Formats: sequence, structure tokens, C-alpha cells
Amino acid sequence: MPEIKITADFIAEENAKGLAALKSDYSALGEKLARSGMDIDAITDKVAQFFVAVPSWGVGTGGTRFARFPGQGEPRHIFDKLDDCGVIQQLTRATPTVSLHIPWDKADPNELKAKAEVLGLGFDAMNSNTFSDGADQAHSYKYGSLSHVDTATRRQAIDHNIECIEIGRVLGSKALTVWIGDGSNFPGQVNFTKSFERYLDAMRDIYKALPEDWRLFTEHKMYEPAFYSTVVQDWGTNYLIAQTLGDKAYCLVDLGHHAPNTNIEMIVARLIQFGKLGGFHFNDSKYGDDDLDAGSVEPYRLFLVFNELVDAEHRGVEGFHPAHMIDQSHNVTDPIESLMASANEIRRAYAQALLVDRTALSAFQDGNDALMATETLKRAYRTDVEPILAEARRRTGGAIDPVATYRASGYRLKVANERPAVKGGSGGIV
Amino acid sequence: MPEIKITADFIAEENAKGLAALKSDYSALGEKLARSGMDIDAITDKVAQFFVAVPSWGVGTGGTRFARFPGQGEPRHIFDKLDDCGVIQQLTRATPTVSLHIPWDKADPNELKAKAEVLGLGFDAMNSNTFSDGADQAHSYKYGSLSHVDTATRRQAIDHNIECIEIGRVLGSKALTVWIGDGSNFPGQVNFTKSFERYLDAMRDIYKALPEDWRLFTEHKMYEPAFYSTVVQDWGTNYLIAQTLGDKAYCLVDLGHHAPNTNIEMIVARLIQFGKLGGFHFNDSKYGDDDLDAGSVEPYRLFLVFNELVDAEHRGVEGFHPAHMIDQSHNVTDPIESLMASANEIRRAYAQALLVDRTALSAFQDGNDALMATETLKRAYRTDVEPILAEARRRTGGAIDPVATYRASGYRLKVANERPAVKGGSGGIV
Amino acid sequence: MPEIKITADFIAEENAKGLAALKSDYSALGEKLARSGMDIDAITDKVAQFFVAVPSWGVGTGGTRFARFPGQGEPRHIFDKLDDCGVIQQLTRATPTVSLHIPWDKADPNELKAKAEVLGLGFDAMNSNTFSDGADQAHSYKYGSLSHVDTATRRQAIDHNIECIEIGRVLGSKALTVWIGDGSNFPGQVNFTKSFERYLDAMRDIYKALPEDWRLFTEHKMYEPAFYSTVVQDWGTNYLIAQTLGDKAYCLVDLGHHAPNTNIEMIVARLIQFGKLGGFHFNDSKYGDDDLDAGSVEPYRLFLVFNELVDAEHRGVEGFHPAHMIDQSHNVTDPIESLMASANEIRRAYAQALLVDRTALSAFQDGNDALMATETLKRAYRTDVEPILAEARRRTGGAIDPVATYRASGYRLKVANERPAVKGGSGGIV
Amino acid sequence: MPEIKITADFIAEENAKGLAALKSDYSALGEKLARSGMDIDAITDKVAQFFVAVPSWGVGTGGTRFARFPGQGEPRHIFDKLDDCGVIQQLTRATPTVSLHIPWDKADPNELKAKAEVLGLGFDAMNSNTFSDGADQAHSYKYGSLSHVDTATRRQAIDHNIECIEIGRVLGSKALTVWIGDGSNFPGQVNFTKSFERYLDAMRDIYKALPEDWRLFTEHKMYEPAFYSTVVQDWGTNYLIAQTLGDKAYCLVDLGHHAPNTNIEMIVARLIQFGKLGGFHFNDSKYGDDDLDAGSVEPYRLFLVFNELVDAEHRGVEGFHPAHMIDQSHNVTDPIESLMASANEIRRAYAQALLVDRTALSAFQDGNDALMATETLKRAYRTDVEPILAEARRRTGGAIDPVATYRASGYRLKVANERPAVKGGSGGIV
Repeated sequence: MPEIKITADFIAEENAKGLAALKSDYSALGEKLARSGMDIDAITDKVAQFFVAVPSWGVGTGGTRFARFPGQGEPRHIFDKLDDCGVIQQLTRATPTVSLHIPWDKADPNELKAKAEVLGLGFDAMNSNTFSDGADQAHSYKYGSLSHVDTATRRQAIDHNIECIEIGRVLGSKALTVWIGDGSNFPGQVNFTKSFERYLDAMRDIYKALPEDWRLFTEHKMYEPAFYSTVVQDWGTNYLIAQTLGDKAYCLVDLGHHAPNTNIEMIVARLIQFGKLGGFHFNDSKYGDDDLDAGSVEPYRLFLVFNELVDAEHRGVEGFHPAHMIDQSHNVTDPIESLMASANEIRRAYAQALLVDRTALSAFQDGNDALMATETLKRAYRTDVEPILAEARRRTGGAIDPVATYRASGYRLKVANERPAVKGGSGGIV
Repeated sequence: MPEIKITADFIAEENAKGLAALKSDYSALGEKLARSGMDIDAITDKVAQFFVAVPSWGVGTGGTRFARFPGQGEPRHIFDKLDDCGVIQQLTRATPTVSLHIPWDKADPNELKAKAEVLGLGFDAMNSNTFSDGADQAHSYKYGSLSHVDTATRRQAIDHNIECIEIGRVLGSKALTVWIGDGSNFPGQVNFTKSFERYLDAMRDIYKALPEDWRLFTEHKMYEPAFYSTVVQDWGTNYLIAQTLGDKAYCLVDLGHHAPNTNIEMIVARLIQFGKLGGFHFNDSKYGDDDLDAGSVEPYRLFLVFNELVDAEHRGVEGFHPAHMIDQSHNVTDPIESLMASANEIRRAYAQALLVDRTALSAFQDGNDALMATETLKRAYRTDVEPILAEARRRTGGAIDPVATYRASGYRLKVANERPAVKGGSGGIV
Repeated sequence: MPEIKITADFIAEENAKGLAALKSDYSALGEKLARSGMDIDAITDKVAQFFVAVPSWGVGTGGTRFARFPGQGEPRHIFDKLDDCGVIQQLTRATPTVSLHIPWDKADPNELKAKAEVLGLGFDAMNSNTFSDGADQAHSYKYGSLSHVDTATRRQAIDHNIECIEIGRVLGSKALTVWIGDGSNFPGQVNFTKSFERYLDAMRDIYKALPEDWRLFTEHKMYEPAFYSTVVQDWGTNYLIAQTLGDKAYCLVDLGHHAPNTNIEMIVARLIQFGKLGGFHFNDSKYGDDDLDAGSVEPYRLFLVFNELVDAEHRGVEGFHPAHMIDQSHNVTDPIESLMASANEIRRAYAQALLVDRTALSAFQDGNDALMATETLKRAYRTDVEPILAEARRRTGGAIDPVATYRASGYRLKVANERPAVKGGSGGIV
Repeated sequence: MPEIKITADFIAEENAKGLAALKSDYSALGEKLARSGMDIDAITDKVAQFFVAVPSWGVGTGGTRFARFPGQGEPRHIFDKLDDCGVIQQLTRATPTVSLHIPWDKADPNELKAKAEVLGLGFDAMNSNTFSDGADQAHSYKYGSLSHVDTATRRQAIDHNIECIEIGRVLGSKALTVWIGDGSNFPGQVNFTKSFERYLDAMRDIYKALPEDWRLFTEHKMYEPAFYSTVVQDWGTNYLIAQTLGDKAYCLVDLGHHAPNTNIEMIVARLIQFGKLGGFHFNDSKYGDDDLDAGSVEPYRLFLVFNELVDAEHRGVEGFHPAHMIDQSHNVTDPIESLMASANEIRRAYAQALLVDRTALSAFQDGNDALMATETLKRAYRTDVEPILAEARRRTGGAIDPVATYRASGYRLKVANERPAVKGGSGGIV
């Protein structure tokens, strides 16, 4: 029986320390918003209802192809990972679900379900893995998986995805996310057209196995691990996939998977407009698929993405309910801290986007008043919404300051005592 | 009555100088190709049948927003431009058609037709211009054209496109190319979704006016002149347009209109696969939309694009007949020379792609032999096909060495005497 | 005798409308900062003493190579431009100096001085122009200026720069900024080494003409107007120049002149460390040298740049006094509004950087606590410092809301009545 | 006693098959070159004297952070690696030296020397590794090595580099290459200035330990494994290092370590001009540090780099003797094949650069004839120099077709029988 590592009492004690300042800041902000006709409590309620899934693989220290430097108390298996995810949810109240990666998280689904229930967690989208070879695997993915020239290899990859669906069914998941590393390192290595045809054929088989109330998310990525071409290289190809497969197929947007300078918020708008936005893998990046903490490098970009999401809500776009997931690699921080901070940043962008005066914005847009239109976004963006975020956490049982409370709890040390130390070394994995 | 500026006799005299070397090189190459079972004359015939359209605006010296430095004998109007295009075709035999830009090239269509006939030229795709304001224009395009918030401005832009179709009809053109500069310079300036809806509505009106046997080409571009967002920003959006409009709508690929590092040959493959490749605006670029001479910076990329085109031909893709056009800005060279050299580079890439052993390539691809697959492309690419190109020109009445022959002809000096000198200055235009 | 277009009384009246809200917000922020041991008035004082120069060319509507769309009341000459700059300073109190561009702003220096005095303006760095050809110019800059192969052309460019110094001397300027467009559009067009040697030789001549108390700023740029290579392409080359020339030579950083993904704040740190940071051309960019309004696309990047500047101040770096200038192109906004908003954004980044708890930051850095280190920056960044900025303006006679006050003043309409309308057209200039 | 795996007789037999074709192609090319006044045999001799070092780590299959897919017969240790390097040299005659990586290649230096001698190999630059943690390491490099905040960690990294020098001394190496992964993943994580000061201090200690006749190469890289900032991020910083350290310090250029769109050949020219070009890590890239085979993606760029090198030779630059090394990751090919092909591509670029008519080029440059200047480079580049490369190999005892000969030899199968199979898995290392 898993014990709950951080008690509600402890959180309450810690919260007591910051309560006065929070009340003062919340009240000052409330007054300011009221001047613009906005009700702070209504915003706080909306924020408290906004959730983002945590990736099971995110609670372990990540790495690069050069090295991996593990931290203390690295989770040994999915049950340890769920414990860590439980802490994140306990303190932030923003992450009630976990996204699993198979085969990394393979275990008895009923045990998983039981463990999650104790921790107050549910299961988000299932993730398949056909970008590395498992120990007992008949066919290698060295030269591709769902687009491989060999039928048996493709079949193996299809079956693995179907297995992920089966596991997810038991766990209560409602979506499968398919990201593949298939591509090429040399001009001419693969025939682009045949390769994509094989991929589409394989995906049709997976799609057929999808339960009626599930969604299928495909994720594009410009490059890595393939360095000359990637089968699902951009949103254009991703859209073609979703359109080819059918109504349950949607495109997933990972913020770090685009060409330099790409206007990502515009891609988000296009996918919403054509009914194919499945959701997000949130993170941040400066160079490539850096998998940095959400909002850590370009926070305004994250806001602009949420501006599109809130705009779509505002316009009442039919069937609009994107899935929110974090997908990051934590190489130099405590992964639990990074995930809590990231969940907070994502909620921050959402809260700021809620503050945009959309009536004024529309009027400025219709009047070609570019300066005031952009200033309308900026006014919302530069509002310090931390009091709203803290209050949303506090009201739902979370911590005013999740990182400080986590550090005070001594959780990392506790698990470090239970979990054996891991040696660093060459070659990381995320 | 326009005189032909360079006589066939003059070309023949010039050709005589290089004939011996050409014969020797052609014969050596023929022998080498024969060893691989290839017939050089068959290749030469195919090359001689490959054409690319010249843009009327390309024969004037281009510029940047900083300055324009005109050359000698700048064409004063479309008739001068046609004279220059005539010389390019005369010497290269690769550019029998000209692509017009309205209103820049507005003139009596029948006079245009007559002039072109004398010069042995035809008319390629018509280009509309709604990215700058004409002198007598009722509504400004400062804040957009086909996506403008104002109905009357959109209508004006639609009508201009329809006018281009009407002119093209008389001239014998069979396609309209629509490129717009619409976009925004600030986050929030435009609503991405509404703006694209307005664009699509406007395009539907233009599409309706399209004759049965015409094609409509839409061209995407990442940025410039808009610097935060562009309505038709990438091939994904371009595809959505072509799909929304109908069977006569196709996507045009300009090689300089993509994000850094983009795999353009893959986009070409995708558009072919989904039946929407309209054709190309050929040029080269290192940084942005540099509009440099085709193949001048990344010649292997140009080859890889042609590798996809020849592969599609080879596979017998139905309805595959992309339009080939040059779209360059010649800021530091004699535009006629650059256009001749570019036509040559484009044919070079085509010739090299024809040399790819596609049976061997398929076998290496199916065997996951990446090294030999890429080597198969490289073998074709590194073949010096200049003898084939020169011989194709020679056999069809063109020059063995177009630039040398052009210089020897004194054409530039002749027209410089006829056409008044143009002062340079701030602010260029392409 | 120039009349002052907006009276102090008018500003005071407008300010009265927003005063109550400002007082409330300022007080709430003061309280919050006091909790962290910071004195809001001390910050406000520092902000009020922070200035940024306005570029004379910035008050005219900019353009692209495709088109220019002028607005109402475009300034006809430098005296009109000074009027516009005067308004910007009047309302923001952040821009007491103007940076001139010769020959665009050529006029009797004494008249310029007199006019500026009336408007309460001074003169910042002088800018030379050897990237376009003047009307009466003996040698063309088509193929370069300070690096041109021809001695006479280089001499002409040197003399022009020396003339700029002479004009600046009369005006009270203390710096010359040299930016050239020299480079190439084709591999092989120029010899990189010889070209740079010629450039250095020419710069040595200019450097010799520099008064003792002047500084020489050289500005690097990756590309445009040259599209294959640029002589002063990056900060590495810029540093070599400053080092070669001597102690009065410094590097200027324009935020839009770098390769995609470049970490600009790090370049700023390096130049400070090696004593060669001259100053900035502030603006923002998403793709290339977009010349967008400062902080409009990546406000966090602007903050990170200021974080380096304030860190250097904090460390007491000797001889550290960078020049702050705006360099933007205003294509879709009223240039006066954009410049006021930009001056505000620049001060905002400065104010936020002043709020960074540098003792805490150092401790987190020394403890490898990446999460709390970055959170320390973020806490400062997400503080809404608008009350500080507004109060700094108000206390020095400026407007609480400069854009609203400007619009209420009717200035643009007034000058539109005096200044003839300008037709738009092809080919812009910035 | 190591047996030589491929006999000279075997190579001769294989060569016999291609000899007639080679002779014919060589003779045709010779004739063509003679027409331009060039002596093919002189070129062949120069090519035969051009060498590039092979990296010991390059003969093992590489990987990414996602996975590594080993091939057959993976080398178990440095002695196996040397065997593989021996084969590469045997067949190409272009790679007589090996570059070691410590601690990966740690072994008794005298045994190494003896083994190398048998194989006809020597030792090139030594490479230190402070970007991953060794098994028995006192201080972790998780937060940096030579720039670490902790003195003991820096000391450890310094000592490791000095140890590399000591090993290299015994082996006959004459250079140390220092590449570090130090940097940060978050704004604020490190202080750029202090971090670089610590790095420079540490490097001074290493520099002091450098034997008189050695060179020290520092290598810049934009990003990875650090994803927000990297201590030695670009050539500007690299130059500052070399300049700070002294005359034996030089900058190493890895072709994949730059920002998108960077003009690398220009950086090469600048470093030559300022006496600080140390040499190269050759490879190719399309997106980031892809470590693809040299010349496989942008062969013209490789040529343009060699154009600078040959130009410097031609100008007789004093003290100019750059080190040539390959640094690639072979994920989907047999590493031996990729290294042979890459050595060939590097020689190809060199041979093409030798064919440039530098007198004509200078004249075109001095005449601002951009078109003919670039055409002069292109003429050399498009010459198919394969006969020269093959003949250079043949004359020095190598294979006309190294890959075909290697495959025919059955070497890979032989070593696969000796060396145990390696399981693939998550997390690669290069």
C-alpha cells in the first residue's frame, strides 16, 4: 500500500507562511482587473479547471547522446514514477493525469490502476515506442518502423501500437499518441513517396483498432533521430495523415519540433480552423528539440499559443477540446521541480490569455490598428497572474509555492534512501 | 517592327570556335555513359525538350529595400523586356515562354502577342500584383488585399486577378499565379482564422473566373513583406488552399520561400503524391528569399528537387506536368546573363537527375543500403553534363556558350544606346 | 520659429484622467516590492534617467523591396523629422536625442542645432550611408563601398564618413556609426580576405579623423542587402575590427542582425567582458532583419539583454556606458506611436532587469540551482512595471499614456494638413 | 600479432577489374584539363599527398539520445578500432593517422604504438572528454567541467587534459583538441562572464602543460549538449580563446557546429587571415550537429571551404598548415564504408578546388564580374574528378573502388565472427 509522501497538513502549514502576501497581491490584482470589468474569481475558477498531463518518462533525469547525469532517487519503474507524479499533482493540482510510454511503463494494468487511484491520478494518452529496439524484439527499427520496407517489421510496429491501445483501454485512457523516428540520414536512402505510403497503410491498421471513443494523435517533428529526412516532418504532412485516416485522427503539436523561426501559433490556428488540432506536447526550445521547461526561453510564444486556444474557446469552435501534455527532458534540474514549474507556466499562459480583452482586440483588428491590437495582447501578457495561479492551487488543496513546499518536505531525500543510486554515463535517453 | 538583335549566323560563327572541344567532350561522356548502358543522345533529346519560363520582371535589375543599382540599357517597358527575353531564348533555346506581371506589363494584348510571335516567344502563367499600390488605385493594400478586412478592398483585388485572367486569355496563357504579401507585423494585428477565411472566400471568386483549361497556382512564402505572420506561410496552408478550391488549383513551390533547414525536395514529393504540385519558381537562397540565381549556392539541393521530378516521371504519376518558371532578382549581374546561366543550371539538374540509375537506387533502398543509395545519386550528380547541355543548345539553334556569345554580340551596348540611363537610388523593387 | 505642437497643459489634462489608477497601481506595486526589500522610488528614479536615441529615419513610414505604403503627414525633411522626434520626447521623456543619417538629413548644421534646441533635443551618433547611390555621386556603391576593389570608390566612402564626423562635430554628436552593405551575392564574387583587408584599411583612415572624445561604432549584420556574404557579417568580425582599429572603436549590436537561434545576450556579455560593447540598435525580429518594434515579438529576449547590462553595471565594469539607439522600420503603424511604444518597451526591460535579486541569483548560480536561478530572473521579468514607467514619465513632464495623449492631441492630422500627401509605390526604403 | 586483414594482392585483383575504365576516364579528363593548361598528373600527385585523420570513435556505430542500433562486428576496444582504421587507410591511402579519445581509448601507449606501426598508422590530435562522467570519477561534470563553479571539478578536468597530453606525447601526437559541453539549459543558470573567466583560467593551465611543438585546438559549437547557452558557442568566442592563450592556440572548425544559414567558408577565411585557423572536424549537416558523412548533404559548401584553403596555399600564407580530421556519427551505415567514402569526398573537394583558375578568378573579382567569377568556381566544381581520386589511390597502393573492394574482402563478416554481437538499446553516444 503506497503511502502518501506529503500530507495535506504539511501543505497547509507551508501555505500559512505565504498567505498574507498572497491575499494582499490577490486583492490588488482583483481591484486592477475590476477596473477593466473583469472578475478575478471567475478567472481563478477557470484556471483551477485547467489541467495538463505529466509524462511518466519526465520524472526521470533526461540526457543527450553525449551523456546522462542522473540525480538522486531516480525512479526505478513505473510505480516509482507514479509516486513522483502524485507529488506533482498534490502540490500543483494542475496535473491529475499521467501519460504512459510503452514498453518503458509496461506492468500489470490493474496494479497500475490501483496505484494511480490511491495517488489520485488518472491516465492520459498512451505513447508507443518504435524508435528504439526492445530486448526481445524480432525485427529491428534501425531502418524504420511503420514505414519500414519490410512487411514483418511494419507488422511488429503496428501490433505494438495495438497493444498500447489494449493496455490503455484497461487503464481508462482515451487516446493513442504515435510518434516515430522513421526517416533517413542520406539523400536517396529512402523513397519519400513509397515510405509515406507504407506509413499511411500501417497507420490505417492502427486506426482500425481504435475504440470508438478514442482519438489518435500523430506528432510531427522536423528532424532527430533522422538527420536528412523525417517521414512526419511538419504539420503539412501531419494534416495529410489526419485527413487520410478519418475523424478520430488529430495532429499533435510539440513546440520544439519545428524549423527555426516558425510561427507556431499560426499552425495552431490553422489546425483548429480545419478541425484537426489534437493537442500539445508542451516544452520550450531555443535551437532544436531542446525539450526545455515550458515557457523558460520564449514565454511570450507560449502565451501566443494560448491566445489562439482561448480565442477558439471564445468563438465556440465546435468539438474543440485539445489534449494538453508536457513533454520535456530534465537534464540539470530535479524533474519533479521542473514539472511543477512547467505546469505553472502553462497555466500562467492560459490565465494571461483569459485576460485579453477580445472585444477591444477585434475592434482594433477590424480598424487595422496594429499598434493597439498588439498592445491589447501585451496588456494581458504583462499582468502578473501569479496570485491567480497560487490562489487556484490553494483553493484546490495545493501549495501556494509548490517548489518551496516540495523542498521543505524532504521528498527527494526520502526516495533517494529507498531507490538505489544510478551511475551516470555516456548516452542519454528521453 | 522589332529587329532580331542577334543573327543565327553570328551564333553559328561563335559556335564554330568551341565545336571541336564540345565534340571531344561529348564523345568522351557518351562513351562513359554507354558503359553504364545509357545513350547520351537520348538524354540530350530529353534535355532539349525541357523548358523553363522567364519572368518579364527578371530582365530588369533588381534591388533591395536599401537601394537599387540599375545597369546599362534597363528595359523601359514590356516590349523592351520581350526583346531581352527573346535574346535569352535565342541563345539558350530553353526559355520559349515569358511570364507576365500585371500591372507592370500592362499593354495592348494583341500588340504583345504580335511582338512575342516575332521573337519566337509564347506566354506562360500570368502574375497578379496586390502587394503594392498602383497609381490610380481606389483602395490601398497597406493592410492586405485578398484577406483585407474591408470588402471593397478584397473585391478590388479579386477583380484585378480576374483582369489578369482576361489578359492571359488573349495571350494564350493557361495559368494564373497568385502570390500575396498579406500578413501582419505584430502579434494580434490580424486574427489568423478570420483572415484566412476571407482569403479563401476571395480565392473562390477568382477560381470561379478561371477558364476550364487553366490552372490556378498559389504560392506560399514564410515571410516578407510581412514580418510576423503571412497568410499563405507554408506548403501546409498552400495545400489547404488547393484542396479547398478544387481540381484546377495547385501549389507553387518557390525554392527561397521556406524556413531555414527545410527539406524542400520532400515537400515536392508530398505535393506530387497528393496531386497538388503546380510547379516552381526557381532560384536559390542562403538566408531568406534571396532570389539568387538558380543553383548558385546549393546546386545539390536543386538536383535533389529534380530527382523527385524525374522519379515521378519514371513512376508515371498521372496528370503530372509541373510548370517551370524562374523567379530571381538580379542585383549585381546583367539580368540577361543571369537568366541564361540559370536556365542552364536548371537544365543541368534535370540532366543529372535523368542519369540516376533508378533500378539500382530502388534496390539499394529496398535493401537499406543507405551508402550505396546515396552514392547512386552522387554518381549522377557529379557527372559533368555540360557537353549534353551545350549540344542540346547547339542542335536547336542556340549557343554552345550563351554568355560568351551574348557578350560578343554587343547586345547590351546596343540597347543601352536606345534606352535612356536610369539613376540608382534608395529602395529597390523586384 | 517652430511652434511646440503639444502643450504641457494638454499633457497635464490628459494625465489627470489616469492619475487615480496609476497611484493605486504604483502603491500596490511599491508595497509588493518593499516586501522583497526594494524601494520603488529608487527604481523609478533610475528609469527616469534611462534614455534611448531616436533615429531620424524612423519617423517616416518604412517599406520593403516590394512596396512602401506611406501614412498621413509624412515628414518632408529633417526639420519635419525633428518636429516628430520632439513629440516623442515630449510625451515619453525617454528620447532626448536624435540620431541623424547623412546624406538623408543633410542641412545647415547650425539651423539643425537651433531647431533641436527649441524642441529640447540633442544629437546622438551620426550615421553614414554608403549602401545607396546619391544623385550626384561620382562612384557607384553597386559593388561595395569601404571594401570596393577600386581605390577612388573607397576614398569617396571614406570622405563621406569623415564629412559625417564634421557635421556631427558642429551638432555636438560624440560618435559615428558605420554600417555598410558591402558583400557579395555569389560564391567567388569577392575574395573574402582581400575585401576585408581593404575594409580595414579604409576604416583606419576614418578612425584617424575621429575626434579624441568620440567613439566609432561598427555594426555587423548577417545578410541583406548582400545575400551570399557580408563583409561585417557577425560579432566575431566586428570584434576583429574594433580590436584592429583601437581604443575608440566599439561594436554595435543590432538585435535583428544575427543568424537564427543566436543567443544574443551572450554576445552582449562577451563584448562587455572584452571591453568592446559600443551599444545597441534596438528593434525586434522573428525571421531576418525585420526591424519590428522593440520587444514586440520576443520581449523576454530584450529583458535578457538588459539583464546583462544591469549585471555589468552591478559588477561595476570600468568604462561601461553603452549607447542606446532605436533602429526600426514602421510599415503599418504611425511611426511616432511605434517609437513611443518602443522607448517604453526598452525602459520596461531595463526596469525589470533592475528588479532582479542579484545576490540571490549569484547564490543559485554558485549552487548549480538552475531552477531557482531562472525563477529569480522570471520573478523580476513578470513584474508588471508599467506603473513605474508611467510614474517616471509623469514626474518628468511626460504622459502617463503617451499613445492615448498623442491621439487626443490631433498632432498627426495637424501635420497632415501642412505636409503634402505622398503616393505609395513599389520599392521601400528604411 | 595482428594480421593484416586485406592483402595487397587482393586489392590488386579487385583493381584489375576497373582499370580499363579508369584509364579511359583519366585520359579523357587529362585531355580536357590540358586544354585549360592544367597537368592532370600534377593534380593527382597533390591529391595523393592530401591526408585526413580518422577518429577512433568513428568506427563504432553511433547513436542518438533516442537509441543506438549497433551493426555487426562492433569494435570492442581501441585495438579493434585500430584494425578498422587500418583497413580504411589500406584501401583509401588518405587516412594515415588516427585521432584518439581519452578515456575511451585508454590503453598502454606502447602497445598502441606497436599496434599502429604494424597497421601503418600514426596518431593525430588527442581528444579529451569532460562531457560525460567516467566510472571512477570524483567530481561530476553535470554542471560543467573547465568552467564549473567548483575549483576541484575544474582541477580534475584540467588534469584530465594534461593526462591526454602525456599519453599523446608517447604516441607521437602533436596536438590536443579540447571540446567541452559546458553551458546552461536555462536563462540565468550560469553567469556568462564568470563562467568564461573560469574557462579561460583553466585553459591557461592546460596551455602551460603543452609541449613546445604542440598545438592546442579549441572547438566551438552553438549548442548541444547545453540547450540555452554554450561556453564556446561560436568562432568569435573561439578566437578570443586562441588569442588569450597564445601562439600555440588555434581554432578548430567543425562544419556542423554553426547557426542555421551561417557562411562557414567566410569564417574559415577570417581565421586564416588572423592566423588562428587550427583545422577542421569534417562532416555534413542539414539541421544541427547531425554529424553526417562529409559532403553528403551540401557538397558545394565543402568545396567552398576547400576553395579558401587552396586560396590560402596559393597566396602562400605563412604558417598555414591546418589539421584535417573527420568527426562523424555513423548510425545507419557500416562505419568503415562511411569513413572511406568521406575521406574520398574530402579529397574530391580538395581536387576540385585545385582546378580553380585563380588568375581568371582574381581578374573577374577585380572587374566586378560576379557572373564569371562564380562560373569560374563552378567550372572547377562540376569537373568529375573521380578518375584523379581513383588514380591517386591506385598509385599509392589503395583501391580504385574502396567500398566495392571492402565488401568483396568480407572483412566485416570476419570481424563479426571474432567480436561478440552488441544489443541495441535506448541512448546512443557519439
